[in-house]
Amino acid sequence: MKFNAEIISVGTEILLGNITNTDARDLSQMMSQLGIDVYYQSVVGDNPDRLKEAVKTAKSRANIIITTGGLGPTYDDLTKQTLAEAFGKKLYRDDEAARQMEEYFSKNSLPAPTENNYQQADLPEGCTVFYNDFGTAPGCAFESDGIYVIMLPGPPRECVPMFKKYAVPYLSRFASGAIYSHNIHVFGMGESAMEAILRDKMKAMTNPTMAPYARTSEAFLRVSAKAASQEDADKMMEPVIADVCKILGDVVYGIDTDSLENTVLLLLEEKNMTLSTAESCTGGLIAKRLTDIPGSSKAFLGGIVSYSNEAKINILGVDPDDISNYGPVSPQVVRQMAEGARRVLKSDIAVSVTGIAGPDSDESGRPVGFTYIALDTPDGIFIRNLPGRTADREVIRQAAASNALDMIRRYLTGKNVNPEK
Amino acid sequence: MKFNAEIISVGTEILLGNITNTDARDLSQMMSQLGIDVYYQSVVGDNPDRLKEAVKTAKSRANIIITTGGLGPTYDDLTKQTLAEAFGKKLYRDDEAARQMEEYFSKNSLPAPTENNYQQADLPEGCTVFYNDFGTAPGCAFESDGIYVIMLPGPPRECVPMFKKYAVPYLSRFASGAIYSHNIHVFGMGESAMEAILRDKMKAMTNPTMAPYARTSEAFLRVSAKAASQEDADKMMEPVIADVCKILGDVVYGIDTDSLENTVLLLLEEKNMTLSTAESCTGGLIAKRLTDIPGSSKAFLGGIVSYSNEAKINILGVDPDDISNYGPVSPQVVRQMAEGARRVLKSDIAVSVTGIAGPDSDESGRPVGFTYIALDTPDGIFIRNLPGRTADREVIRQAAASNALDMIRRYLTGKNVNPEK
Repeated sequence: MKFNAEIISVGTEILLGNITNTDARDLSQMMSQLGIDVYYQSVVGDNPDRLKEAVKTAKSRANIIITTGGLGPTYDDLTKQTLAEAFGKKLYRDDEAARQMEEYFSKNSLPAPTENNYQQADLPEGCTVFYNDFGTAPGCAFESDGIYVIMLPGPPRECVPMFKKYAVPYLSRFASGAIYSHNIHVFGMGESAMEAILRDKMKAMTNPTMAPYARTSEAFLRVSAKAASQEDADKMMEPVIADVCKILGDVVYGIDTDSLENTVLLLLEEKNMTLSTAESCTGGLIAKRLTDIPGSSKAFLGGIVSYSNEAKINILGVDPDDISNYGPVSPQVVRQMAEGARRVLKSDIAVSVTGIAGPDSDESGRPVGFTYIALDTPDGIFIRNLPGRTADREVIRQAAASNALDMIRRYLTGKNVNPEK
Repeated sequence: MKFNAEIISVGTEILLGNITNTDARDLSQMMSQLGIDVYYQSVVGDNPDRLKEAVKTAKSRANIIITTGGLGPTYDDLTKQTLAEAFGKKLYRDDEAARQMEEYFSKNSLPAPTENNYQQADLPEGCTVFYNDFGTAPGCAFESDGIYVIMLPGPPRECVPMFKKYAVPYLSRFASGAIYSHNIHVFGMGESAMEAILRDKMKAMTNPTMAPYARTSEAFLRVSAKAASQEDADKMMEPVIADVCKILGDVVYGIDTDSLENTVLLLLEEKNMTLSTAESCTGGLIAKRLTDIPGSSKAFLGGIVSYSNEAKINILGVDPDDISNYGPVSPQVVRQMAEGARRVLKSDIAVSVTGIAGPDSDESGRPVGFTYIALDTPDGIFIRNLPGRTADREVIRQAAASNALDMIRRYLTGKNVNPEK
């Protein structure tokens, strides 16, 4: 029999948009790793009638129902009562759960539990109890009419570790071979261009499969295989990954790497080289992204955020005449910014960015997004020009930063720093 | 008639836990502000049968159905086709949407749109088109069988602004007395401390109401009132806001402001003063946060990311002996960093940060999170020391940057730069 799951998250605060439903995301991720399909996620408020309706719908289309939330001590926490009723189960008071709650209260110097608190220890008869090491509301699992029900508390700090500790072993018997995957990271080709190139291949695949995803200013392709072990899965995926990397060419910047900045830092370390930055429109974003990564100080020496012309002139040594003649967004200025950073910070290579981040274009009338990036290296200077584009300031800045990092990784891997379009 | 809504998010990547469904949260929040109840949120994969099933369920229990996602150009983007079929509508090609797509492609120097791309301009007959200013897939709205359907693209950068621009006016006729709110922004007091101080007040309130929320390294209190107009709501909220601001004191940094960095930039402009930065452990994060904001160049001159000791010495003029004697994370070094930035960048004030971002502590054995921040001003220098704490690198860096911005806003508003704890 094929199992598929529905996750029902209970909580009016989710429907009001007051909190983000990260439980559904985290549980879905773990279900996917177990190889059990989640076909639906639902969210319903703290309202017994609508919860009943949601459970009825889930019963009709899923054989594993996982609920999160609504197990607290207050009057609107009704998940257990509603689910027990929907599956014709009575509640009983679990002595061990009650004892653990008393212990929790005394350990945390709380006043003695009230009858409301004790109701958290009431559970559907015949269930497997998931005791809560992280709070007071226990979860549980039971089977009825061929449907498996799992109930977990809502707070992510309780829900996620309890799912890992109790629900994963409970559900593992339904896992139909786990799913393993690898991500092929791409810069310089969009999700839809990748899809267009690979569509026929993707359509023809069943196991492994692959699918393209977009991230801010980049994309990745996830290759997934269902198999008995990581080793078996890898054997199935290897030829696919090799094939895709060949087709996509040098826009591929890594497999299972975290980010462009991580790739750049690893390459710098490998080559024992140092980097510095000079940023105008990105305003420190490249430096921020590099230093997000622990240990970045090994290769990244520092940077100048030369937001004003004075900073460009005084710290980086840009010629003021060039700024007046060509403007701050020009090949002349971006080149001197990179040279200046490399000289002042004594790094092996340096990257610089100057452009129009928006939302308004500059006095020269060039469009938002228009940017120059320079990479100064022992092998000379490379300049990339990004045309204007329709996007908000955040996207423009991230794209400029990513392009700068892409130039560095291309230089360090001996590829064309500025590939033909 | 009472209207209630269901949000259906379409995307296998949500069911795999690959992305977080922030659209559902953001749209729910705006629906709540409109005063229209969202009774259910659903998530379904890129699968026409299951999407059909989800739409059937939604039709039986909601009279406003909002879909997000599945409007892209790839073969598994099926929301429009499925919804049109479910409501017995044919698709037509919208000329204006096609024209705008061509324009978007040419503006962004993309190759000419393919037939796949053009299919994005196919819309249900008789619909109101929501043209997409932020991407290529238009959204739309139509009515059928007394049910109002709204379709929006999935990427949050398109979905959220399009909902604001098109769906909010479209839906406003169903709003039953809107909810208006103001946010009181707080730095230096946590959500739970705020809740403890204000609990009795909050419990006693019905309209307006208030509730505390946490953000990265800060918090805010949302005051909301249900009323016939913004003016009426404001009259109800004003005394509450004044009362809360008095109780909380100078940890309140603004009402309805976007962020600490925005507050700082407005204050600088107001006082016609300029700022520069010298960042070690925050690695450009303060500069990045300031330059996220359009127009920041009016007050922010630039910064030095002095990640290496050489950068501290060569650019900022920090005494190398002080670095060896006291270490780079010391009051002596942080002071010279701020003085150096202020001198080199010729700004009225300068802020500097040096600390241990983690995940490992430094050789001196001081804990992760231990940080010095200095603010150099015409009135002298102020130094703040943050103790170690259990948190990840991202949280530590954001907290250090926020503390630096908090010192600036306190200085510029004549408050104690370092308040008593």
